[in-house]
Amino acid sequence: MNETHDPSLRSWVQSANAPGQDFPVQNLPFGVFRRAGSGESFRGGAAIGECIVDLAAAAQAGVLDASAREAAQLAARPGLNDLMAAGPAACSALRLGLSRALRAGSRQRAALEPTLVPRAQAEHALPACIGDYTDFYSSIHHATAVGRLFRPDQPLLPNYRWLPVGYHGRSSSIGVSGQQFARPLGQRLAAGAHVPTLDCSRRLDYELELGVFVGPGNAPGTRIGIDAAESHVFGLCLLNDWSARDLQAWEYQPLGPFLGKNFATTISPWVVTLEALEPYRLPLAREAGAPDLLSYLDGARMRSAGAIDIELEAWIETASMRAAGTPASRLARSNFRHAYWSIAQMVAHHSINGCNLRPGDLLGTGTQSGPEPQEAGSLLELTHGGRDPLRLPNGEQRSFLEDGDAIILRGHCERAGAARIGLGEACGRVLPATA
Amino acid sequence: MNETHDPSLRSWVQSANAPGQDFPVQNLPFGVFRRAGSGESFRGGAAIGECIVDLAAAAQAGVLDASAREAAQLAARPGLNDLMAAGPAACSALRLGLSRALRAGSRQRAALEPTLVPRAQAEHALPACIGDYTDFYSSIHHATAVGRLFRPDQPLLPNYRWLPVGYHGRSSSIGVSGQQFARPLGQRLAAGAHVPTLDCSRRLDYELELGVFVGPGNAPGTRIGIDAAESHVFGLCLLNDWSARDLQAWEYQPLGPFLGKNFATTISPWVVTLEALEPYRLPLAREAGAPDLLSYLDGARMRSAGAIDIELEAWIETASMRAAGTPASRLARSNFRHAYWSIAQMVAHHSINGCNLRPGDLLGTGTQSGPEPQEAGSLLELTHGGRDPLRLPNGEQRSFLEDGDAIILRGHCERAGAARIGLGEACGRVLPATA
Repeated sequence: MNETHDPSLRSWVQSANAPGQDFPVQNLPFGVFRRAGSGESFRGGAAIGECIVDLAAAAQAGVLDASAREAAQLAARPGLNDLMAAGPAACSALRLGLSRALRAGSRQRAALEPTLVPRAQAEHALPACIGDYTDFYSSIHHATAVGRLFRPDQPLLPNYRWLPVGYHGRSSSIGVSGQQFARPLGQRLAAGAHVPTLDCSRRLDYELELGVFVGPGNAPGTRIGIDAAESHVFGLCLLNDWSARDLQAWEYQPLGPFLGKNFATTISPWVVTLEALEPYRLPLAREAGAPDLLSYLDGARMRSAGAIDIELEAWIETASMRAAGTPASRLARSNFRHAYWSIAQMVAHHSINGCNLRPGDLLGTGTQSGPEPQEAGSLLELTHGGRDPLRLPNGEQRSFLEDGDAIILRGHCERAGAARIGLGEACGRVLPATA
Repeated sequence: MNETHDPSLRSWVQSANAPGQDFPVQNLPFGVFRRAGSGESFRGGAAIGECIVDLAAAAQAGVLDASAREAAQLAARPGLNDLMAAGPAACSALRLGLSRALRAGSRQRAALEPTLVPRAQAEHALPACIGDYTDFYSSIHHATAVGRLFRPDQPLLPNYRWLPVGYHGRSSSIGVSGQQFARPLGQRLAAGAHVPTLDCSRRLDYELELGVFVGPGNAPGTRIGIDAAESHVFGLCLLNDWSARDLQAWEYQPLGPFLGKNFATTISPWVVTLEALEPYRLPLAREAGAPDLLSYLDGARMRSAGAIDIELEAWIETASMRAAGTPASRLARSNFRHAYWSIAQMVAHHSINGCNLRPGDLLGTGTQSGPEPQEAGSLLELTHGGRDPLRLPNGEQRSFLEDGDAIILRGHCERAGAARIGLGEACGRVLPATA
């Protein structure tokens, strides 16, 4: 913890001081933006209230000291990979420089204020060029609930408590909030049928996850130890791992999910650094009777502060709601503190075999379901495999997603004695299948 | 078929005319190279006999017509992604231009010959910046043999004959021939044990596959039809999908292979175009009684010429063989003609849900085992899960790979009335585990 976390800090950007604001001066998440419709190059920015600091412009404006300026210049390109590669010291210097320049009373205001871009006028690109995308399965509540549907006799497989199960996902179809995609086609095996048909998915679902952007990473053949693992994490975003349950059920044996997942993945535009989240660290939840961790997954910091208290929410806005001007309806809330496996464990496990992680690689945490049924992170769980449809406030029902449905993921941290840190939102919309 | 396939063509590059040469003038595969140790930029080249045509230099030398020159210029960068994106017409024009310039008697010889680089003096980079890597499972013989080891009661799962099963692999750890990697560490569950241990893999294996580089690809939300699928394929290489069977067995349920595979994948440096392989097309092998294909996986061309007659071989060179100067020993030979699923079917299936393929993406065909036991594409199959070690000609035995073992994959096409088309080789070596 350092001066950037001081909850009493206020910004001369007035919107940053509003109650409930996701991006106060204690947050300063990074993203890639341009003025919408401008034809400008996408470039790195930091969110402050309802505005964006253009990092290259800030570097030029002479408001940052040498180390912060150097880091800001790394963010001038259309992806933040170079800043991610520079590691925590560079990101921390940039955060400190921005914090000082944006504080109420800062003498840098005159030079910096003209370079701010209103968030409402911006459009976003992905925060980084994502080389590899790996999705984990870190919520034991999700794994158990989904396992029960697919394998009633053995919901949780024997490896679950020993290692953070993960698999490789698709990079090409990851989009930033605002992504729209057509309902996917694929092979389905109807209940009781022996012959699959080609059809559009009828069991389209969302998954409420966090995304983790990799920082410096490791060379092939080297490992990232558990104690060093967080220094290889740039920050967190929201991630919706859209899933076509019917395609997935038919295809996933024996090699795992493929077309049931790879048509689209939506992430939020702003990446919140681990440093900003520092006030919200908690001991990692461990079950009574859980097996002892193998040493490469165990560590003092991991035990004392491996979890992060991030409140997560999934909201739905149906086409009818949009047409009627009805507000979106919350489907569920959960919290990342319930995760069985920590981010550091995912990183250490991923590289234990020498697999190299590169700056800008993305890890998904897996669906973050909590212990209570209403804390489930997907419709599959909330509706018990579609058997018990949800009734929405406007009278509509949902077993799975319908055309026109938008899902909005939100996340934030809040407690007495610390500034609220928000993750913004990741919004995506289902369009009708194309012919 | 066109003039570039004429088996009577000879080149003024004499080594290209030697019997058994992989790269005669009818082949002209593309890759990325530089003079070894030169510090030059990596750039695109075409192999001809024991030499390489530097494509940018050829473009400058004035030996190519406009369309071929334009394509050659796309290959000046350190990855061939732009050439792959340009599509079959551009690649075909470049192939024709090179074929004419390299033929015996060509007037372009004087201008082109000084730009040639001996292959023996070159080092290679990956042929493209690989965005996503997908591995399929297209050999029913491999799927059945491996399935028998993991699931004796149900070796082949019900979906196998309906769709080309695939999953996403790791891009970051793909290396070009010559790759060396340390034996991976990971969690293993010893036979009869209930508690896993962290150890180096003791069941390290190779997999004999082909790699398929994607050409233009598709936009998100669009599909590549089966009849157009081959126009989105740039060409083929050899691919070794190194596999740690013990790590894989413990981790792979329910989300598929992860650390058992992602530590290394080795491909050959030269990508042979589908055009070069045209004389070796065959009808796709279909079992009697196989179910009717769903229409998006069926097509006239796919039925009449969906297969390619490529002879594939895996060789081993142990440390003892190297020390004694003993030649490498062949472990098995197989043929891509035995594949159950064609490349076009893999492409059509991959995009049926709107998943976008990008230029330079890599597809693996999965291990190409033939119908006979000695045609198996992995040690897992050849040694029946390690139970029946192979005896090598020098007296050594192998159940799985030992430190110092190099695996060399080779592939070629040969028949009367057509020129031999070789794929070169993909060689990789296992180093001892690091502490």
